[in-house]
Amino acid sequence: MARPELNFWFEFASTYSYPAAMRAAPLARANGVALYWRPFLLGAIFKAQGWPTSPFNIYQNKGRYMWRDLERICRELDLPFVRPNPFPQNALLAARVALIGLTDGWGQDYCRAVYRAEFGEGRNIGETATIAQVLTALELNASAILEQAQSEKIKLRLRAETEEAQKLGIFGAPSFVTADGELFWGNDRLEAALAWAKR
Amino acid sequence: MARPELNFWFEFASTYSYPAAMRAAPLARANGVALYWRPFLLGAIFKAQGWPTSPFNIYQNKGRYMWRDLERICRELDLPFVRPNPFPQNALLAARVALIGLTDGWGQDYCRAVYRAEFGEGRNIGETATIAQVLTALELNASAILEQAQSEKIKLRLRAETEEAQKLGIFGAPSFVTADGELFWGNDRLEAALAWAKR
Repeated sequence: MARPELNFWFEFASTYSYPAAMRAAPLARANGVALYWRPFLLGAIFKAQGWPTSPFNIYQNKGRYMWRDLERICRELDLPFVRPNPFPQNALLAARVALIGLTDGWGQDYCRAVYRAEFGEGRNIGETATIAQVLTALELNASAILEQAQSEKIKLRLRAETEEAQKLGIFGAPSFVTADGELFWGNDRLEAALAWAKR
Repeated sequence: MARPELNFWFEFASTYSYPAAMRAAPLARANGVALYWRPFLLGAIFKAQGWPTSPFNIYQNKGRYMWRDLERICRELDLPFVRPNPFPQNALLAARVALIGLTDGWGQDYCRAVYRAEFGEGRNIGETATIAQVLTALELNASAILEQAQSEKIKLRLRAETEEAQKLGIFGAPSFVTADGELFWGNDRLEAALAWAKR
């Protein structure tokens, strides 16, 4: 039998993508599931639903609840948590760099480091300096990577990935999609998605 | 130490309230938590958020996902599932009757029977005949109860409960609220809510 596979669709500005990104790799490994990290941008998808910003900013009770829920989840997982300011952050550069890293082999460490910077240390990942610092801390050539991130090829790839997410019916992050097209939405569905992938 | 308590806020038209209503009582019992069933109406709360109907009808991708997710959850729990038509159903009468039953001791059985009729058998709980049949099947005096449900006292109580839900910051169903005011939203947060209640 082929090794089970699961696509992990995430957006760096997404709050529940933070605990998901921290949990996904070890859980997938423990389940013998190959996990594909798929960064994308939620902005266009939210706009198509009539939301100019995060629904957590538009619907205040929902937003208030989410911050408290996320705080509880992070405490449970022993993850540091600082509420990002501004929220949501501009994740465009972070996502472009992730595409490079996920091809070059340092992507997963980079993704976790970006989430840690944003949600664990209160740094603004919308600033190029933050991404540069994250790359440098991973002993990577930040300036070369940042230049590559501005290439037409990478820009188009991120756009194509976001379109692919939309085609899959994805409307939020994190989302998990199995090889047979089952969609699971939310950090709390990671276990169910892994179980489905293994069926 | 006092027995831990948990308020279970639910709405009969709410999809994820169905599995929650079926799971809540045995799980609470197993955890030694006193569970208070609190029916309320989501309509006013949705309207305050600018939604004239269920957000699952407004946001199509989210709606499509929810139906599939609910189907998977019901299969996992061995619960029958039929997609209600119309959706959402008018839960006003069902909720008023629930308030009577939860005072009189037959409320929990009634609530589960209403959910089963709606989501397990495809019956329309917005019709008085359906509620009458549910009551009769429980060997209750349907006509007396339906008359009581139209009393000013019961109408006002349901309105007060819905206002209380709003004050607690509830924006969806099912929601769970602990004695110290912690809010948990969603069928998938039942376990976390029970754990919090026992802290």
